[in-house]
Amino acid sequence: MKPYYAVIFTNSKTNQVEGYQKMAEKMSDLASKQEGYLGEESAPGITISYWEDLESIRKWKDHPEHREAIELGRKTWYASYKTRIALVEREYSFEKP
Amino acid sequence: MKPYYAVIFTNSKTNQVEGYQKMAEKMSDLASKQEGYLGEESAPGITISYWEDLESIRKWKDHPEHREAIELGRKTWYASYKTRIALVEREYSFEKP
Repeated sequence: MKPYYAVIFTNSKTNQVEGYQKMAEKMSDLASKQEGYLGEESAPGITISYWEDLESIRKWKDHPEHREAIELGRKTWYASYKTRIALVEREYSFEKP
Repeated sequence: MKPYYAVIFTNSKTNQVEGYQKMAEKMSDLASKQEGYLGEESAPGITISYWEDLESIRKWKDHPEHREAIELGRKTWYASYKTRIALVEREYSFEKP
């Protein structure tokens, strides 16, 4: 397996939820169209996106629409969050036979 | 920041849920007592645990009670899962003022 990156985004929300779901879907959709995007997994409070390299992560971070969404997120939806950039070195899969 | 590891465990369940929650809590508790354990974040279908180094991850993987739980998970609760071992290189935090 070729190493790739995971961006682990964990967060807790404020009680201002208006517009959040729509924006989350929009950003998820926009991310999927960026160069170097490999996929995404999410559950309430956790979103992990996968990327080919640091350069594609940096470009996505600096995407104008994404920057606006981040700004709005800090003003409105998120009480706190943490973003971790991590190099995936190994992976194991299990699928029930 | 000193680099550390994230173990990203994503899964989908079967419809056999009996015993799962209890075991998940037991393993979460047991993991937290292992050397090198730094913390855990989880949401339905995703558990991320953080560790000082690969050695502590290997030891936890080989812990007898954990091995039994993994075995039972493969037989019973999980339709599929993926485990990724990733080196956390950078992190950013936001806390609402």
